[in-house]
Formats: sequence, structure tokens, C-alpha cells
Amino acid sequence: MERRELVKALGLGALAAGGLVACGDNEMLASNKPKKPVTIDWKMVTTWPKNFPGLGTGANYLAQLIGEMSGGRIKVKVYGAKELVGALEIFDAVAGGTAQMGHGASYYWKEQVPAAQFFSAVPFGLTAQEMNAWLYHGGGMELWREVYEPHGLIPMAAGNTGVQMGGWFNKEINSIEDLQGLKMRIPGLGGEVLRRAGGTPVLLPGGEIFPSLQSGAIDASEWVGPYNDLAFGLHKVAKYYYYPGWHEPGTTMETFINKAAFEALPEDLQAVVRAACRVANQDMLAGFVAKNNAALQQLVNDHQVELRKFPDEVLLRLKQLSDEVVREEVAKDPLSTKVYKSFSKFRSQVGEWQSLSELAYLKAREL
Amino acid sequence: MERRELVKALGLGALAAGGLVACGDNEMLASNKPKKPVTIDWKMVTTWPKNFPGLGTGANYLAQLIGEMSGGRIKVKVYGAKELVGALEIFDAVAGGTAQMGHGASYYWKEQVPAAQFFSAVPFGLTAQEMNAWLYHGGGMELWREVYEPHGLIPMAAGNTGVQMGGWFNKEINSIEDLQGLKMRIPGLGGEVLRRAGGTPVLLPGGEIFPSLQSGAIDASEWVGPYNDLAFGLHKVAKYYYYPGWHEPGTTMETFINKAAFEALPEDLQAVVRAACRVANQDMLAGFVAKNNAALQQLVNDHQVELRKFPDEVLLRLKQLSDEVVREEVAKDPLSTKVYKSFSKFRSQVGEWQSLSELAYLKAREL
Repeated sequence: MERRELVKALGLGALAAGGLVACGDNEMLASNKPKKPVTIDWKMVTTWPKNFPGLGTGANYLAQLIGEMSGGRIKVKVYGAKELVGALEIFDAVAGGTAQMGHGASYYWKEQVPAAQFFSAVPFGLTAQEMNAWLYHGGGMELWREVYEPHGLIPMAAGNTGVQMGGWFNKEINSIEDLQGLKMRIPGLGGEVLRRAGGTPVLLPGGEIFPSLQSGAIDASEWVGPYNDLAFGLHKVAKYYYYPGWHEPGTTMETFINKAAFEALPEDLQAVVRAACRVANQDMLAGFVAKNNAALQQLVNDHQVELRKFPDEVLLRLKQLSDEVVREEVAKDPLSTKVYKSFSKFRSQVGEWQSLSELAYLKAREL
Repeated sequence: MERRELVKALGLGALAAGGLVACGDNEMLASNKPKKPVTIDWKMVTTWPKNFPGLGTGANYLAQLIGEMSGGRIKVKVYGAKELVGALEIFDAVAGGTAQMGHGASYYWKEQVPAAQFFSAVPFGLTAQEMNAWLYHGGGMELWREVYEPHGLIPMAAGNTGVQMGGWFNKEINSIEDLQGLKMRIPGLGGEVLRRAGGTPVLLPGGEIFPSLQSGAIDASEWVGPYNDLAFGLHKVAKYYYYPGWHEPGTTMETFINKAAFEALPEDLQAVVRAACRVANQDMLAGFVAKNNAALQQLVNDHQVELRKFPDEVLLRLKQLSDEVVREEVAKDPLSTKVYKSFSKFRSQVGEWQSLSELAYLKAREL
């Protein structure tokens, strides 16, 4: 059996990687027959439909980058949701070694790993730029690694949607009372905040939002932002498009990697994978920022969608409820307490700087 | 002479790279003696003092990333300003092949390449997040490459300061008239705007700001933001610290690479260099966002610096003057006209989206 075949037969890239020929591996260079470097075949399972705009294409781009930078030494094959395992099974699949990489968002794992959700989105939490500052220069990545360590996974940030939209509504929201009795598709912590405001959060996968709004099974739904929402056609079944997305101010996408597989890579390929995630992280945000406005114009001009800002009194109340919900959630779990302590301290400090920099500047430019 | 020695004797990595052993180069693998892969030695000349916080350390980080990801196949040695060539000679030095990479900011080359300045900072222009969206998903990078092409250079974004501060003043700015007669260290387009407001822009390297403020040779100066300004000790010689930095809302740092040297790299190392620049770009911004507030608190609490926001009427007038200055500058040069058309169209479109996303969210969080 050829070495290459053997590696394939063994199945796991992690095992293969232990003996792969790296550049500079003099023993292999010294052999007297031409040999192709061994290719490490990795599988990336994702929570997104294959090629889903922004998110699924972001996973594809990450795989492509790893292939290009490694000169083909690692080949990452991307699987859409359900192609290999279900959307919400990817965490366990990568932990168990069925695949080497996963691409999703960490709030999906809050049942088994409550502290994970602080690395995706927190109501009234950090923007994309602030998240990157916390993760890379504020201690966030170290905490994230600590949270995933017991699961045999290494996390990396691998994308960001930027500030999302507040959602699609069929009635106007003029006061906090207008949320009472509202059946809205809104997952996670944001959903708990809605419940506390008297509404009913509903959990639905993306693909069921359209029919549920159409049939009246739900009154409202959030999804992502103009670029994704237009693609789903949500403007056809809801009248008002509210902003800002207080519940997801800069949702971070993640990659997690099977620890054994990652550690079996030679150091240069570990550096390649880390860098590819950071490029993918930046690139997804840049793509959303560039594409959202064009989609917004289409929604407003071609489809007569009515844009509405949540009134300040509604936002203020949602912020108070968010703080309550997050504090109670955090109190249930020591690791969440530890993560949130760092997160909230960073938010408070960075917020002061943002008010003099980004916020003051964006206000000045609008004068 | 050993191949490795010959390569060194030839001096230029670009020449060496043409014949280097890449991973997967079967002819070399087939040779019957162990050979080390040839190391490509690159020089990076910078406009920053060696190890200067944020900017110089950002150049170091970029070099380190390239080394790690390439498994040592490229070694980039970083030179501070004046170590190999002067700070403002790096553009010509890399174009001429004295070094393979340069690290600076593109507005430094506006005399020889007027269109270059739109890729660093424009008064009332794009924030860091918007710049990345324009560069990577709005056509900006393609234009930047076109602008540097005649000089034999390939540009890449390699850092960002985020929104800078408005500067240090020894008198309060309560109206646009307070700028009349003001001698302020402020370079580039921002300086032209000050001149049009009746002030006198002064060009000074960073190291001369402190003594010039101290002696009263200048009345005011901008530099970067709290993290860098604190290190320079500017709080010792000026009383008021103004915001926001209307003149530099998200200054992009650049790397430019000798085209022949870059094209001589095998494809995987080209991908490595491109990715390293993007990681460095993101990382510098994340570092500034994380560090500026701590420095700001030190300035305010330990050094009793008085923070001041420019009054809206001053900002509005500066914005009008900025538009005039930029339009006149652009009209002098066809390539600038082409670049600015793309830049200003993007700014207008992204601004609409930002007002519903980042701006609306940051305002809501402050309620």
C-alpha cells in the first residue's frame, strides 16, 4: 500500500499528520526516489447550508486559504449541514474525530457548554471590532481555549456578521408593551430577553422562517442583515424592518479543530491554519459591510420595505432586561462567570474609548 | 560555491526565489543527497523607529508571521527608519530592489504618487472597518494595485490605527475662528484643511513634536491616539486633548513588495505573504482598540488631561472644507480622480448602512 493510500485508509488526518513530510524534512528529501509530499485530508463540517451566502461561502474561503497557503499539503473538504452530520451535531463530530474542523457559531453549544455563548453574540455586547480586540488583545482567546479544552477542541474566530438587523415585524413597535404576546423567532439570550418583556421566543431553523411568517405562526423574526435577509425573501412576508440588532451586535463565527489533529500538524501548518482563520474572520466582516447596503437599497427601493428604528425607550428597557438575563445565566455556571467577568470589564472599558472614537466620528460625519 | 551561498551573494531574494526549492518540487526531492530548502532572505524597510509601539511592532509581527507560516523558507529582517534607508526613502528603496518589502502609510508618497493618499486616510473618510470593506470587497485593492503598478510595487494593507484623536491643544477650540493663526503639526490633507480654516499647518516628524510644543514653536499637534501619544509624553506639554480625529478616521498602514521579488515566490509563499499582511492588518487594529482606553484613563486620571470634543459647528465647517480640499486635490490628477470616485461612492453607500448598524447600535448601548 502506498504511504498516501495508507494515510487515507487510516482515515483521520490527525494520524496521518504525525508522519507527514514537511518541507525541510531531510530524511525524506534524502530518499532516492521522487515522492510527492503526503497530503493531509481534512473534513470541515458546518452548520450552514452548503454555499450559504456569507456564512457558508466564508467556510469555503477558509478551506481555500488553507489549501493555497499550505501549497496543497492540507486539503480541507467542506460539508454543508446534513451532508456528513446535522447542523447541530458538528461540535460532537469534531470532538469525536469524525471530522477535523467545524464551522459554526459558539452560541449553538450553550446547552452542553454554557460559557461558549459569550464568544458569539451577547445582547448589548461587543461589536465586531471590539470582539476582535477582546479576543486577540484582551484575553478572550485564552478563555475560549480554556472553555473548549475539556472537549478536545481548539477554537478560533473565523468570521463576523457585523451589527445585525433587529428583525422583521408585521406590526409597529412603539413601546415595550408592543412586545407583549409577540411570537418572534429569536434564539439564545435575545429570546430570553423577549420572554422577559412579555413575548414568546420561538426557535426555528432559518429555512422555516419564511413559511412561519407567511402563515402567521409567528409575528416577527430576526435573521442576519439585509444581504442574507433579502436572499431569504423575508420582505415578502413582513412589512417593517427594525434596527439596530441589539441582540447580536457583532456575531463571531467560529472554527473549532480537533486538538489531536491540530497538534499533529508541523508548526508551519499550524501557523497557516491559525492565520487562515484570522483572514477568514476579517474577510467575512468586510464582505458583509460592503454588501449589506446594496441589499438594503433593494429592500427599500424595489420592495418598499419600511425601515424603523426601535424607539429609545424600548432599547433602554431591552438593555436592562438583557443585563438581568445575562447575569442570571452567568450565575448558573462558574466558567461562564469567569468568561463574563473578562467580557463585561472589556466592554465597559472599550465602550469609553469607542464613545470618543468610532461613535464620535460617525456622528460627526453625519452632521 | 554552495547554492545557498550563491543565492546570498546574488543579494536579492527575488533572484534567489526564481530557483528555490518549493515543497513538492519533485526534481529536487529526487536528488540523491539531502539538501536544505533554500532560505529566501528579505529585507523590510520601515518608516517607523525600530520597535515603535503599534506601528513598528506591527511590522515586526508581520515579518514573524511570514517566517512562521513559511516554516522559515522566507526570513524577513525588519529595519527601522534610517537603519538601511531614511523613513521617507523606503518607497524608492523597494521599487529599486534595495529591499523587498516596505512598511509605512501611503500618504507619505503623495508627492510622487498623488493617488496613493486615498489608501491611508482621508479627512471625513472611511473608518477601519469601512476601509477593509472597500479594499477587499469594494474594488479598493484593485485600484491600489493599479496605482503602484508603474512603480514595480505590489501594495497590501497591513495595519490600521482605528479612529485617531483630534490632537493636543493649549487653548480651547470653541469656534472655527479659534483655528485662525493656529500653528499646528498636522500633515497631509488635514493640514490643507487647517490652512483653509486660517491656521498654519506645520510638518514635523514625530520625534520633534514634544520639543516644539514645549518651546511654543507650535500651538497644537495631532499624533495618533492615547496609546502612542502617552508614550510620547505629549500630555506634559499640552493641556487639552480633542476628539474625534476627523482628519484620520481609520488610517491604513501598508506593506509594498517589490513586484519581481513577489512574483518569483512559489504560489504557496505568495499566499502566505498575502495572508500575513491581512492578519497584521487586523491585529494592529485589535491592539489599538484594546490598548487605547487604558492609556486614555492614565492620561485623564494620572495626568489630569482635559478631554474636549470639537463643537459640532467646528466639525461641520471642517467637513465642508475637507470636501473642498479633497475635490481640488483630486482634480489635479486623473488617477486620483478614478480612485476617489470609487472611494467616495463607497463612503456614501456604506455610510447609510453604518447609520443603521454600528452608529445606531453604539448610540443604543450608551442610552
